[in-house]
Amino acid sequence: MRRQEFSMEEEQELTAFLQEQTFGFLGTVTPDGEPRVTPLNFVYDQGIFYFHGSLAGEKMKNIRSHDRVSFTVAEEFSLIPSYYSDPEMACPATSYFKSVAAVGTARPVQDAAEKAHALGLFMAKLQPEGGYAPIDASDSRYAPRLKSVSVVAIVPERISAKFKFGQNLKTEAREQIASQLEERARGKDMETARLMRQFCPFHAKE
Amino acid sequence: MRRQEFSMEEEQELTAFLQEQTFGFLGTVTPDGEPRVTPLNFVYDQGIFYFHGSLAGEKMKNIRSHDRVSFTVAEEFSLIPSYYSDPEMACPATSYFKSVAAVGTARPVQDAAEKAHALGLFMAKLQPEGGYAPIDASDSRYAPRLKSVSVVAIVPERISAKFKFGQNLKTEAREQIASQLEERARGKDMETARLMRQFCPFHAKE
Repeated sequence: MRRQEFSMEEEQELTAFLQEQTFGFLGTVTPDGEPRVTPLNFVYDQGIFYFHGSLAGEKMKNIRSHDRVSFTVAEEFSLIPSYYSDPEMACPATSYFKSVAAVGTARPVQDAAEKAHALGLFMAKLQPEGGYAPIDASDSRYAPRLKSVSVVAIVPERISAKFKFGQNLKTEAREQIASQLEERARGKDMETARLMRQFCPFHAKE
Repeated sequence: MRRQEFSMEEEQELTAFLQEQTFGFLGTVTPDGEPRVTPLNFVYDQGIFYFHGSLAGEKMKNIRSHDRVSFTVAEEFSLIPSYYSDPEMACPATSYFKSVAAVGTARPVQDAAEKAHALGLFMAKLQPEGGYAPIDASDSRYAPRLKSVSVVAIVPERISAKFKFGQNLKTEAREQIASQLEERARGKDMETARLMRQFCPFHAKE
C-alpha cells in the first residue's frame, strides 16, 4: 500500500510503527539549495514529529533559512532472493519494508513548557523504565538546560506510507514466497511472512 | 569521530559499514525546492554509490531538475539510559550509532554495460548465495529489461562519518557505561560496548 489517506486501521498501524522505530531521517535544504539528510531520534505525538539537538549545528541553520522539511522512517524486513520466484533471472530480487514519509514545516519550539513536554515524550518512548526526575520547566535543575537545547516540531502537511509486502502478487506466488521465508527463518523473515498474509486484503481493496 | 578525511584504517571501517548495510536514505530537492528523503537499497563500489528504480517515480524527476543529492546510511546500536551516568537528571540519555553521509551529484547511468555491472554489484551484495544467471547486457534475456530500469550513480564530493560511541567520555565514565551495557546485553549492546573500547583511541588522537 502507498497511501496518503488512511483508514482508522491503517492509521493505527502507522502510529504503532512510528512508536516502535527510534530514529528517522530529516531532509533539509541548505541556504545554497542542496539537500541534506540527518538521522535523528524522534517522537511522534498527536500528528506532530519532534526532534532535538544543539542550537548550533547545520540542520538548525538550514531550518532557519528554509523551514520546509521532510522526515522519513523506514525498516527493512526481508531481502527476497530472485530464485524464490524465478530459477534463472535476477530481476525479481527485491526487499520488503515499511516506510513512512512526512512532508511539512519545521517550527523551533521556543516555549520552555512545550520543550519540557516534548523532551518528556522522548524519555517516555526511549527510556520507558524511568529512572529520572520528570522534566519540568519550573524545576530549577532543568530550567537552564532547557534553554541550551533546541527542540523542533515538524508539522506534517501530508504523510505517506508504503508497506511493501508483495501485495501485487497473486495468491499462489505470495504463498510461495511466504513459505520460503518461513523455511529460511532468518532475521525478521517470520514476521515478514506474517505481514505478507496480513496485508494482502489491502491489495484486494485497491 | 566525525571526519571528512579518513585514515586507511577508518576508510576500511567505513567501507565495511557500507557493505553491511543494505539500505540508505537519498536526499533530493523537488523542482519547487522542497526536500525529499527516500529509503533505497544501494551498493558502494570504488567510491561511488549506486541505486536503481523505475524510470518514472518522483526521485528520478527530482534528479533531472536538480542533480545535487545527499545519501545517508545509519545504524543505531544502543540507547543509553540517563541513569547509566546520572541517578536524577534525564539529560545524559542518548544513543550510540554509526552514520555516513555523502554529498554529491547524481548521474543517471545510460550505458547498458555499466547498468549491468551496477546491478551485478547489487546481486553480489544482497544475494551473495547466487542462484541467477549473471547480469550481462549482451544476454538477450536481460537486454530489454535493462532498458526499462533506471540505475543512478552518486559521485560523492565529500563523505563524512560519525561513529558515536562515547568518545567524549573520560575513561572511567566510558567503562561504567560499557559495563552496564554488557550487563543489560539487549540487542546490539555487547557490540556497542566493544566499539566503545575500540574507538576510544580515535578520541585520544583528536
